[in-house]
Amino acid sequence: MIKTCIAGATGYTGAELVKLISGHPNAEITAVTSRSYAGQKLTDIFPALGGMVDITCEPMDMESLKGRIDCVFLALPHKVSMSYAPFFIENNIKVIDLSADFRFKDPKAYEAAYQPHSAPDLLKNAVYGLSEIYGDAIKKADLVGNPGCYPTSLLLPLIPLIKEGMVSTRGIVSDSKSGVSGAGRALSLSSHFCEVNESFKPYKVGNHRHVPEMEEILSFHAKEPVKITFVPHLIPLTRGMVSTIYAEVTAPTTHDAVMNTLKQYYGSDAFVRLLPQGKFPDSAHVRGTNFCDIGVHVDNDSQRIILVSAIDNILKGAAGQAVQNMNLMFGMEQRLGLELIPGAI
Amino acid sequence: MIKTCIAGATGYTGAELVKLISGHPNAEITAVTSRSYAGQKLTDIFPALGGMVDITCEPMDMESLKGRIDCVFLALPHKVSMSYAPFFIENNIKVIDLSADFRFKDPKAYEAAYQPHSAPDLLKNAVYGLSEIYGDAIKKADLVGNPGCYPTSLLLPLIPLIKEGMVSTRGIVSDSKSGVSGAGRALSLSSHFCEVNESFKPYKVGNHRHVPEMEEILSFHAKEPVKITFVPHLIPLTRGMVSTIYAEVTAPTTHDAVMNTLKQYYGSDAFVRLLPQGKFPDSAHVRGTNFCDIGVHVDNDSQRIILVSAIDNILKGAAGQAVQNMNLMFGMEQRLGLELIPGAI
Amino acid sequence: MIKTCIAGATGYTGAELVKLISGHPNAEITAVTSRSYAGQKLTDIFPALGGMVDITCEPMDMESLKGRIDCVFLALPHKVSMSYAPFFIENNIKVIDLSADFRFKDPKAYEAAYQPHSAPDLLKNAVYGLSEIYGDAIKKADLVGNPGCYPTSLLLPLIPLIKEGMVSTRGIVSDSKSGVSGAGRALSLSSHFCEVNESFKPYKVGNHRHVPEMEEILSFHAKEPVKITFVPHLIPLTRGMVSTIYAEVTAPTTHDAVMNTLKQYYGSDAFVRLLPQGKFPDSAHVRGTNFCDIGVHVDNDSQRIILVSAIDNILKGAAGQAVQNMNLMFGMEQRLGLELIPGAI
Amino acid sequence: MIKTCIAGATGYTGAELVKLISGHPNAEITAVTSRSYAGQKLTDIFPALGGMVDITCEPMDMESLKGRIDCVFLALPHKVSMSYAPFFIENNIKVIDLSADFRFKDPKAYEAAYQPHSAPDLLKNAVYGLSEIYGDAIKKADLVGNPGCYPTSLLLPLIPLIKEGMVSTRGIVSDSKSGVSGAGRALSLSSHFCEVNESFKPYKVGNHRHVPEMEEILSFHAKEPVKITFVPHLIPLTRGMVSTIYAEVTAPTTHDAVMNTLKQYYGSDAFVRLLPQGKFPDSAHVRGTNFCDIGVHVDNDSQRIILVSAIDNILKGAAGQAVQNMNLMFGMEQRLGLELIPGAI
Repeated sequence: MIKTCIAGATGYTGAELVKLISGHPNAEITAVTSRSYAGQKLTDIFPALGGMVDITCEPMDMESLKGRIDCVFLALPHKVSMSYAPFFIENNIKVIDLSADFRFKDPKAYEAAYQPHSAPDLLKNAVYGLSEIYGDAIKKADLVGNPGCYPTSLLLPLIPLIKEGMVSTRGIVSDSKSGVSGAGRALSLSSHFCEVNESFKPYKVGNHRHVPEMEEILSFHAKEPVKITFVPHLIPLTRGMVSTIYAEVTAPTTHDAVMNTLKQYYGSDAFVRLLPQGKFPDSAHVRGTNFCDIGVHVDNDSQRIILVSAIDNILKGAAGQAVQNMNLMFGMEQRLGLELIPGAI
Repeated sequence: MIKTCIAGATGYTGAELVKLISGHPNAEITAVTSRSYAGQKLTDIFPALGGMVDITCEPMDMESLKGRIDCVFLALPHKVSMSYAPFFIENNIKVIDLSADFRFKDPKAYEAAYQPHSAPDLLKNAVYGLSEIYGDAIKKADLVGNPGCYPTSLLLPLIPLIKEGMVSTRGIVSDSKSGVSGAGRALSLSSHFCEVNESFKPYKVGNHRHVPEMEEILSFHAKEPVKITFVPHLIPLTRGMVSTIYAEVTAPTTHDAVMNTLKQYYGSDAFVRLLPQGKFPDSAHVRGTNFCDIGVHVDNDSQRIILVSAIDNILKGAAGQAVQNMNLMFGMEQRLGLELIPGAI
Repeated sequence: MIKTCIAGATGYTGAELVKLISGHPNAEITAVTSRSYAGQKLTDIFPALGGMVDITCEPMDMESLKGRIDCVFLALPHKVSMSYAPFFIENNIKVIDLSADFRFKDPKAYEAAYQPHSAPDLLKNAVYGLSEIYGDAIKKADLVGNPGCYPTSLLLPLIPLIKEGMVSTRGIVSDSKSGVSGAGRALSLSSHFCEVNESFKPYKVGNHRHVPEMEEILSFHAKEPVKITFVPHLIPLTRGMVSTIYAEVTAPTTHDAVMNTLKQYYGSDAFVRLLPQGKFPDSAHVRGTNFCDIGVHVDNDSQRIILVSAIDNILKGAAGQAVQNMNLMFGMEQRLGLELIPGAI
Repeated sequence: MIKTCIAGATGYTGAELVKLISGHPNAEITAVTSRSYAGQKLTDIFPALGGMVDITCEPMDMESLKGRIDCVFLALPHKVSMSYAPFFIENNIKVIDLSADFRFKDPKAYEAAYQPHSAPDLLKNAVYGLSEIYGDAIKKADLVGNPGCYPTSLLLPLIPLIKEGMVSTRGIVSDSKSGVSGAGRALSLSSHFCEVNESFKPYKVGNHRHVPEMEEILSFHAKEPVKITFVPHLIPLTRGMVSTIYAEVTAPTTHDAVMNTLKQYYGSDAFVRLLPQGKFPDSAHVRGTNFCDIGVHVDNDSQRIILVSAIDNILKGAAGQAVQNMNLMFGMEQRLGLELIPGAI
C-alpha cells in the first residue's frame, strides 16, 4: 500500500483526495494536514465522511512525515507549495502539487503570473501532470505539477490538433465555464449563495492566471508562440467545467479527420471519451468521474473547428488527475481507484 | 387605454405579457387566448396571479376580437402566427408577433430555416422589432416581428460596431448561454428538472434557427454578407441570457473608441446599459428587467473585441421588448410599464 | 413625498427597501447609510440598480438626518437599532425597525433571547408590525418593530384560529423552511454556494431566537401561555419561506369553518390570499411580492388542522411589510408601492 | 457472480441499479429491459455511462430470461410488477420489486391505496425490504417488496422507538421533503425545470399513497393501530430526502435514552449513522450513498421527540436498498457494492 499524506485536506480538492484515496485499492491515507483545523477530526469538518474515514488533521510538520509516507499531495495555495516541496523531494517522498507552483518550465513565466519562485531549480525536473499527454514522463517523475482545471479542459482537445498542425496557432478562442467549486471553500462574496444562484457571468476577462500556463504548453507543442483568447464564466452549479473552443483550420478538414487525430492520442485505456458526430458533452455526464468528454464540429463556412470539452473540475480538473498521476508515478494502472461510474442523475 | 389581446397567454412569454400589461399605466388586457386552456381562468393555470388578474382564457376567435382590441400580441408557435396576422392587420389591429414569422425581409431566408410562408406579402411591411435600432420604423408600423432572444443579445452590441466598420464581417463568434425558460413551458426531457439541474451543455451546435435571422440583420447593416459562428448553451437557471462575442477589429482600437460608438446608438433614454471598463454583465443584474447590459474588452494581442451582453430572455428577449414596441407603435414613451427595478437578489 | 432614510442599505433587506421606495409613488429616498460602504455609490455595490437609483452611502450620522427625513428604516443588526431609535423618535422621525429590538413588549423576554435592552422605555410604545393584525395601532405608531420572517409566516395563519379558540394552545408544531437570503449578505460557510446547493437540512433545532417572539404574540391572543415546537430548515433557493403548521383542534371542525374564520381577519384589502380547498401555497407563487398565501387541510383522523403559509422572506417577511407599515403610519393606502405582480416563473 | 436483470433500466431508479451492479464485485448485469427504448444501447439513453456499460435494452420477455439470471430487479410502475413477479418466482429467480406491489401483507390495504392485486397469494411470502429491520427474513426471501423512499426515511427512526414503547402511537407527525428525482423521469409539469427551480411547496397534503404502507408497518411493531399525519414537500434539488418527525413521548426521556434505543437496532455493520447530540442530518451528507443519517432532539417542554432523518431517495430510498437486499438474499455481506463514500461537495 502506498502511504500518502494529503496536505490541505479541508479544502474541496483536499477533501476529494481523501475520498479517492479512501476508496483506492493500493493506497491509503497516513496523514492529513490543515492549518485552520489542526487537531480536529476530519469528520467534524466533513460530517459526510462519518463512518468512512477516521483521521485527525495535523498541522504541517515535514519532519514528522519523513519515513511515514511515500507520496504527498499538496492541495495548498500557490506559494505555500513551493516552500514544502524541496524537503519532500530530498527525502524521497514523491510530490504531486495541485497549486500552480510547479506547472511552468520557465520560472519567468511563473513569476509574471504569480510571484517570485523560491525553488526554481526544481522546475526543470517537475513534470506537467496532464496525464494523457505526459504519461511517460510522469511515470519517472518525483515531482508533478498538476494542471489547472481550465488548462486540462482546453489542452486535452487542443494539443493533438495543434501538434499535428491541423489548427492555426493564431485565433484560438476558448469560452470556458466553471462550476462554483472551482473557487474553493474560502469565503467570498463571489461564492455566496444568493450572489451566484440564478446568475451567470464572465469574470477576469482578458486576465486569468491560467492563460500563461496554457500558452506555454501549447507553444511547446506548436513549436511556435501561441496566443489564445480566453474568457472564463461562472455557472451556478457545484461541479462541472465546459470549454467551447473555436480554432481556425490550417486546411479544409472533416469531422472524421479531426476525430482520427484525437483517437491517435487518446486510446481506449485513457479517461478521454470522444463523442460521435452530432453529440456534444454535458458537464453532468462527467460529474463525479475522471472523464474528459470531447465533441467536435467542423464548420466549413467559417473554416473553424469547434471543440467542446467537459470535465468535473474537482476530479479530472484537480484531485482525480492527481490520483491518476500517483498511479502512473508508482507504476500502477492509471485507472486504479478512479473507475467512478457516473450516474444518470 | 390601449386594449390588447394576448394570444398564447399560458406560455411563459404570454404569461409575462399578462404581467406587464396588468401593470401598464396606459394599456389593459381585453382578452387572452389559449388553445389548451380555453374556458379556464388564468389564475387556475398561474395561481401566482391570484388577486391581480381576473380573466378567462378564450379560444382564438378572430371575428370576436374585431372592434374589441387595438393591439394583439401573438405569443404563438412559428407558423401559427402567420395564419392570424393578416386578419388583424386588415382590421386595423396592430400586431406584435413573437414568433419568427415576421422577422425576415426575405421569405426565402425564412423558408430555409422554417417552412413555407403563407403571408409573404406582409413581410415587406413588417418591421423587425429591435427597438433601439428600428425605433423610428416601429413607430409607424402595423406589424412588428419581435426579435428572438439570442438575436437581441447579439445584435445590440454588434450592430453599431459593424455598421461603423469597426469589426470585420468575417470571423465573428458568439458563444451564447440561455436559461431554461427559453425552451418554454412545453414538456420535454431537455427541460426536465433532473436533466438540467447541475448540468451545463451546448446544444444545436452549428445549427440554430436564430442564425439566419442574425445574419440577415447584420448583413444589412454591414452592406455585405456576414457569416457568424454561433453556439448556444443551456444554463441551469430560469431567466437569463449572456452572449460572449468575439469579433476581429478592422483597425487597432481602444475601449473608449468602442464605448463611444455604442453610446452614439444607445442614448440615455434606452434600455441599454453600457458598463465601465473592467466591468462585465451578470445575468442576475438584468433579471426581471428590460435592460440589456453590455461590457467591452479590447484585446490588442489578438486584435479582437470581446463584447459581453446580458438580458432577461423573457423580457428584453421577448415580452419586455414586445411591450416596448407597443409603446413605440402607439406613440408612447418607450419605458412605460417597463420601469422594472432589478433587485440585489 | 415622504422622505426616508434606509439605514443598512447594503444588506439584502436594505437593498430591497431601496428597490421598493424607488418605485413608491409617495415616498422617496433621501439618504442611505452603510458602515462598510460609506462613500461608495450604491450602484457600485449593486450594479443591478444602475440607471435606476443614484445615491451614495453615508455613514450613520443622526444629527445630519434631522430635518431631512420623515421616516427611517433601520435594516441593522439587533442591538445597533436600539442605539439609534431613541434619537429619531425624539426628533419626530418615525422609525420602522427591522431588527428584533422593538418586537417585544416584555424587555425580559427580549433580554432572554438577545441581550440587555438599552431603550426599554420605548418598548411600551412600540407596535408589533404585523400589518394585517395590528393595523390600527400601526396607524398611530411612531415606532414599529417589524416582525421576523418566520413569525410572519406562522402568526398570520395561527392568530385568528388561536384567538377564536379553534386550535389548542398546546401541541402546535411549525415545520418551517427558508430560502438562503434569510441568512443575509454577511459571509458564512452556511451561505457558501457549494455548501447549500443540492442540500436540505434543519438548523437551530429547538433553539431559534424567533420562538420567544412568536410565543409572546400567540400567548397574548390566546390569553394564556402558548408553547410551540418550531424547527427551521434551509431550502436551496434564494427567496421563499414556507411554514407547515400542525395544530390540534379544540372541537371537530371543517375546512369551511376554518376558512371563514381566516376570512374574517383577512379581507379583500389585505395581502393575505386564502387558497381554495385542496390547494396549497408554493413559495414561487409569492416570490417578488408582499403576499402571504395560506392553504388549509383539516385532518379529522388526527383531529388536526394543517396550515401551510408561504411568503417571500425578504418582502412580506421583511422589507415589504416594512413599507406596508410605512404606508399605514403615514395614513396611506397600505398597498401603495407594493402592487407587485408575481410572474409565472 | 450473481446474474441480474434490471427491468425498467431507463428510469432513474433503474439507471442507478445499472450503476450499482456495474460496480458490484459479486454481481453482474445480464440483461436490461425497457418498454420505451427496447433495441437501443443504454449509453444512447444515458451518455454518462459511456465506456462503463455496454448493453442493449430488451423488451421484457420472461421466457428468454429463464436460465440466464439469478435475480431480477423490477424497477417498474405499480401494477406492472405484479404481472411479472409470479413467473420469476416459479422459475427460481429471486425478485426484488421496487414498486408498491409487494410491500403490503394485507391485500386490502394495498387495494385501497392502489388497485386490485393480481397476485395476492405471493403477498404472504413477500418480505418488506427495510433491510436493517427485516434482515433475517430478507436473507430467506425469494421475493422482496422494496420500501418506498418516504417510508424508509420515516420507519428507520421510528420503529425502534415505537416498538420499545418510547413514543405514543397517537400524534405522530412527519413533515417530509424530497428532491425532484423522486418524481421520476416521466415528463410532467411538476418536474419541469422552470416550475420547480426556486420553488418549495407541499403536495398531496393528507393524501399520499405511502401513508398506508407506513401505517401498516408501524402498527405491526406497535401491536396497535398507528395513524400518522404526513405532509410531503418538494425540494428544488435532484437527490435527497429529509423527514422531520414529531412524536409524543410516553414518559419523560433524554437524548441518551433515545440514542441508546436506536443504537440497539442499528449496530456498526449497518447503513444507519446516528449523529451526536446537537447535530442533525443534511441531505448533502448522504447524497450518493446508502446511508440513513438520524439526529434526535428531546423537547421536554412539549414532551416531544424530534427525529430528523436524511437519505438519498434514489439510493437508500430505492436502488441502494434494493442492492442491500440482494446482498442479504444471496448470503453476502450487506455492504458489498455499496461502500459509496460521500463527497464534501
